[in-house]
Amino acid sequence: MKYELLKMIDILGTVSFAISGVFAAMQKRLDVFGILIIAFITSIGGGTLRDLMIGDLPVSWIRNINYSIIIFISAVVAMVFNKTIKNFQNTLLVFDSLGLGFFTVLGIQKGIAFGLHPGICIALGTVTGCFGGVIRDIALNNIPLIFQKEIYATACIIGGSIYFLLLKTGINFDWLDVICITTIFLIRLVAVRYKLALPSLYGNNTSEEEKL
Amino acid sequence: MKYELLKMIDILGTVSFAISGVFAAMQKRLDVFGILIIAFITSIGGGTLRDLMIGDLPVSWIRNINYSIIIFISAVVAMVFNKTIKNFQNTLLVFDSLGLGFFTVLGIQKGIAFGLHPGICIALGTVTGCFGGVIRDIALNNIPLIFQKEIYATACIIGGSIYFLLLKTGINFDWLDVICITTIFLIRLVAVRYKLALPSLYGNNTSEEEKL
Amino acid sequence: MKYELLKMIDILGTVSFAISGVFAAMQKRLDVFGILIIAFITSIGGGTLRDLMIGDLPVSWIRNINYSIIIFISAVVAMVFNKTIKNFQNTLLVFDSLGLGFFTVLGIQKGIAFGLHPGICIALGTVTGCFGGVIRDIALNNIPLIFQKEIYATACIIGGSIYFLLLKTGINFDWLDVICITTIFLIRLVAVRYKLALPSLYGNNTSEEEKL
Repeated sequence: MKYELLKMIDILGTVSFAISGVFAAMQKRLDVFGILIIAFITSIGGGTLRDLMIGDLPVSWIRNINYSIIIFISAVVAMVFNKTIKNFQNTLLVFDSLGLGFFTVLGIQKGIAFGLHPGICIALGTVTGCFGGVIRDIALNNIPLIFQKEIYATACIIGGSIYFLLLKTGINFDWLDVICITTIFLIRLVAVRYKLALPSLYGNNTSEEEKL
Repeated sequence: MKYELLKMIDILGTVSFAISGVFAAMQKRLDVFGILIIAFITSIGGGTLRDLMIGDLPVSWIRNINYSIIIFISAVVAMVFNKTIKNFQNTLLVFDSLGLGFFTVLGIQKGIAFGLHPGICIALGTVTGCFGGVIRDIALNNIPLIFQKEIYATACIIGGSIYFLLLKTGINFDWLDVICITTIFLIRLVAVRYKLALPSLYGNNTSEEEKL
Repeated sequence: MKYELLKMIDILGTVSFAISGVFAAMQKRLDVFGILIIAFITSIGGGTLRDLMIGDLPVSWIRNINYSIIIFISAVVAMVFNKTIKNFQNTLLVFDSLGLGFFTVLGIQKGIAFGLHPGICIALGTVTGCFGGVIRDIALNNIPLIFQKEIYATACIIGGSIYFLLLKTGINFDWLDVICITTIFLIRLVAVRYKLALPSLYGNNTSEEEKL
């Protein structure tokens, strides 16, 4: 049952990442092909960067055509029904946050399988979860969103740290991944709901920049 | 004879990609070194990304110094004679379109050699042909041109699909690459001549954006 | 003694690259997490790109946690004491230039160890020294600084060429790396001091662009 649950989260995460790519690309008025590419980059960018850096080649999406199919269908549906889908922001946020947790755990577990240091594993998890969005933003000529305002990568880092803490205690070994996903999921939801952000380094007077 | 033909297309494609990099870089008024780097990125970016993702390392340009020499000479010539060369836009377009076809086939054939799914092979072909220009545009702080207006990647995808259709029928096996290159070449030329673009998702009223 | 000297230059270079990342990120008013990521990218970006392209995987920073620790501490210190540190621009420039030389030699020597052509080795050295900054600038939505004004990569190329010239003569084999680092270091310092830049291709009348 756990396996099916994780499989579903994997798919939902891929779908919601692709949809977030479609919306970001449409905001910049890209053409159909451009939107598709951005949907792909958002969905597979983080895992691709991780696989490249640890040398697990060919990268995941090349070995498994299923991701491409899921992303393609999601992107086409999101393009056609973009106005309808935008009414389901909350649902998308839930999927997206589940996906964030799932991809982070995936990155952590790959790091462990490669015998890497816990700190590096957490970094790889964060890269897997977050860097699809980072590459999307760079390709669209935006400064990456997660570098600026949101509690996003921070959720991955906290979730990853809890993963290794629990791993040390030895408690509940089997459901470690589910606990980690849930933690990241909840932090992300709470952060969006209450508009939590990392403390600013720049004082209250941010108006200068904003006026520009 | 076919081998010599393909070799020549390879060189002409590399040259014309490098020149397009030089012109894009000069538009942003980069210095000599910056222009050289952009010429390199445009020429070898797509193949490098492909080799990285399938794990064929070191990447091509590192194993064969000839590409670097061709790019270097092309870039220097293009810098010195940039006004003269700009009078040969049509010639450049022909070279560029031949190169696009050639690099796409190269990517497809590498994918086949690695035993990958046809859909993935076409994706790799498209990456090889188009992503040098994508990385060039991102490095120059532009939204990639091929995400916006032109029939460019679409030509690669159509050409690649024809490649696999013909491969299935078994007809003309030996000249499959030449047919695929010709298809991409012709689509690209026709698209530029008649200013064909992918259908817009945003209605006729694009004036809002354009006024900005 | 030479080993300890090089080790120290490695650390100082890593620290000063991280600090330059922090300052660039703070200029764009990123949040704490964004600043940390940019510090990492600046420090490890060049070496990561080099390792990816030659296929020396996992990339360096993944195999050795020490770099991450050094970067993390440097970045936190630079965030907290950023006003104080900015008074030490000259010290930072010295560290940065030493680091540039060291990383360039590192890239060259890796290229030699992989049996690559001298021209490719110099390119890899330049990538190692300069592309952390290039990726930093792209991620921050700037056109890379080194493509525009400064004698930076040029110093790496000259230093690398001298490395191979001396290697051919066979003189002073043992201190080749130190000679190369010193050359790059001095070129860089002189270039900054006397505001040397590559010759412009665009004539004196650059006012058009500047007015925009």
